[in-house]
Amino acid sequence: MFLFLILPVTKKNIQKLNTMAIINEHYLKLKAGYLFPEIGRRVNEFAASNPGKNIIRMGIGDVTQPLVPSVVKAFHEGVDEMAQSSTFKGYGPEQGYAFLREAIAKNSYHNRGVDIPADDIFISDGSKCDTGNIQEVFGHNNKIAICDPVYPVYADTTVMAGKTGDCQANGYYDGIIYMPCTKENGFIPELPTEIPDLIFLCFPNNPTGTVASKEELKKWVDFAIENKSIILYDAAYEAFIQDDDIPHSIYEIEGAKNVAIEFRSFSKTAGFTGTRCAFTVIPKELMAYDSEGNPHPVKPLWNRRHTTKFNGVSYPVQKAATAIFTEEGKKEVAKVIAYYMENARIMKESLAAAGFEVFGGENAPYIWVKTKNGMKSWEFFDKLLNEANVVGTPGSGFGPAGEGYFRFSAFADRENVLEAMKRIQSIFA
Amino acid sequence: MFLFLILPVTKKNIQKLNTMAIINEHYLKLKAGYLFPEIGRRVNEFAASNPGKNIIRMGIGDVTQPLVPSVVKAFHEGVDEMAQSSTFKGYGPEQGYAFLREAIAKNSYHNRGVDIPADDIFISDGSKCDTGNIQEVFGHNNKIAICDPVYPVYADTTVMAGKTGDCQANGYYDGIIYMPCTKENGFIPELPTEIPDLIFLCFPNNPTGTVASKEELKKWVDFAIENKSIILYDAAYEAFIQDDDIPHSIYEIEGAKNVAIEFRSFSKTAGFTGTRCAFTVIPKELMAYDSEGNPHPVKPLWNRRHTTKFNGVSYPVQKAATAIFTEEGKKEVAKVIAYYMENARIMKESLAAAGFEVFGGENAPYIWVKTKNGMKSWEFFDKLLNEANVVGTPGSGFGPAGEGYFRFSAFADRENVLEAMKRIQSIFA
Repeated sequence: MFLFLILPVTKKNIQKLNTMAIINEHYLKLKAGYLFPEIGRRVNEFAASNPGKNIIRMGIGDVTQPLVPSVVKAFHEGVDEMAQSSTFKGYGPEQGYAFLREAIAKNSYHNRGVDIPADDIFISDGSKCDTGNIQEVFGHNNKIAICDPVYPVYADTTVMAGKTGDCQANGYYDGIIYMPCTKENGFIPELPTEIPDLIFLCFPNNPTGTVASKEELKKWVDFAIENKSIILYDAAYEAFIQDDDIPHSIYEIEGAKNVAIEFRSFSKTAGFTGTRCAFTVIPKELMAYDSEGNPHPVKPLWNRRHTTKFNGVSYPVQKAATAIFTEEGKKEVAKVIAYYMENARIMKESLAAAGFEVFGGENAPYIWVKTKNGMKSWEFFDKLLNEANVVGTPGSGFGPAGEGYFRFSAFADRENVLEAMKRIQSIFA
Repeated sequence: MFLFLILPVTKKNIQKLNTMAIINEHYLKLKAGYLFPEIGRRVNEFAASNPGKNIIRMGIGDVTQPLVPSVVKAFHEGVDEMAQSSTFKGYGPEQGYAFLREAIAKNSYHNRGVDIPADDIFISDGSKCDTGNIQEVFGHNNKIAICDPVYPVYADTTVMAGKTGDCQANGYYDGIIYMPCTKENGFIPELPTEIPDLIFLCFPNNPTGTVASKEELKKWVDFAIENKSIILYDAAYEAFIQDDDIPHSIYEIEGAKNVAIEFRSFSKTAGFTGTRCAFTVIPKELMAYDSEGNPHPVKPLWNRRHTTKFNGVSYPVQKAATAIFTEEGKKEVAKVIAYYMENARIMKESLAAAGFEVFGGENAPYIWVKTKNGMKSWEFFDKLLNEANVVGTPGSGFGPAGEGYFRFSAFADRENVLEAMKRIQSIFA
């Protein structure tokens, strides 16, 4: 010790005493675990102490039906190409292969009268990554608005990026603009009074299953134009829309190309949760601003991020995803979606018959249920797990306004859906 | 205009005037394009105006040999599992399947006497992503040290994260500690005089092909322990090491588990550049500190990032990667590596015969060449492209100390290697 004390205080010694690898302390603000791992933990614990119980999992919104035949065929072909020198593919374009980007532009946009060029589409390995990573191209002081309840990744990644203060007692992080979605407003948020810079919207909504009409979305696009805000539009569930007049893309609204980024995924559309492929649209018209107010297109910034921090999606996976857009692929995928939506119909009716107040499930694979007698969401989770051996998702996991609600996913085998509904009815009816 | 001027300056009006989506202005500091897209641009331009020319590409370090049979077989099996309800896989563990993590722990670590448990291994879709994303779990004010020259992603992602100032005239970003690797120090950096918090090291090195001995690495581990720094060790090319006494992992050095994160990839090891699979090791012993000096394990922070912003690698790809570690797979992969290393030997000899000063290429797939007569790197690139129709990588693209050097990649077909060397000899000999 004495030796240290008599060391001359040179610049080098000061540096040595002061430096050490410092963690990102914003991570310490995060509440408990990420929702889905916590569900997994409780279910595993229950399963371990109750061997032999047939647990029906409708918690994580994870698909259960296998990849459709056209996709499997293309996937195998992609693998075979990787096995031959003459057709082998090394690094592909980070933004994705033109064949997939063009298939998306044509089928997901042009065919609905929306003029999105293939070049504005960035292929990725998941919308979860993209909705988290997108904030990197925006400045640190942007004000973020998110719905409450909503998919937890928007808030969690905002916290991790250091754009919030601490979590308050009410479950809200300081510095985020929360937009409550309640029974009273039909689970559609009102325009916030404090003006946000980035607005996360998700329709069809996870977890409430709510959809937004054209008029509703126009209100948001106009608001964003007026305030130079950018809408981060998560349309991961658009394939489940049944009503003809509900927009599938925010770009069906005039002016949206100037103010919106759209996230889409093949995870739910075509059973790709374990296969991994998604895409993000950043129209070249979309501008954000430097601190002096000069406009900058966002697309080159995302392109720079994408090429520097990502290396493209596996080639056989891109081949597989492209098959979704063949005539055969479209028919096969539509059949799977119809299967899940029939699940949703059965669940909605059964839960209503069991006396629950039920929302969603008509244009989305999620049923949003009000618990009975003011039961808390996790309390309902535990009761359901213990007594019915059915796993759902506690509404409060999606935000404070989700307290007292519960999400059921329609991504299940029919047999399991029927059995789960029978068990729930026997407990609650 | 007048109407605006007489608006009362209420809080809401002020907010409206001040808010807009702001870009991450740190992106504006980035020099020109990312190196490899710029090479692509020049090559495409040349190809377009010189149709019919047989261009030999040794620029991007991209593999050319197909996936080996064992990998292809397992890849197909994985796809087949996705085609059946009974074996279908939805979301997997974000950290990767246990079967792959265990195969890595056993074959890449335990078999070399290094005790890394499977649980400390995180599967990802690429080391490029991981070496960029890792900085997110560390605080904003950490001081970063990188070698010069080196793989550009370390510096670029540091700039994008806002941890640097502007780029100076000498090509260095303010705020990064650069460690020059020159002919004089054998392309091995000296311990920096300014103490860094995070130290990027890459051995076998990209681009110089240099390797670090145990003694060399021990010097760095001891330095990191002494200064509470963390080493970010990129070992993407370890499979190319030929000398028995060169460490394949930094964890072969005592104490490294407390101060080092290791990045590994199947990209070069097994031809996965287009298939996408890699992994990162974060030992549970590794600590970083909060601003009060309290230690925090880094692994749970990365786990939180990984589960919140990533959704796991495609299941069939993980199956394919696991086959690398079967007895058959190991033999097949070793054959491909031997093929590339024979390329390296040929290149090294040919370039030396053409009068070049040549480095690397003995334990790495890269040959680092000094240009002749003080020619600049991009000048050499253009001459080689125009006169020999051979593409390499300008050394200056890896950092200012790479100026006057050039990187050749041994990832090519033998025929192309021989032809390229013939052309180069005819121009320069």
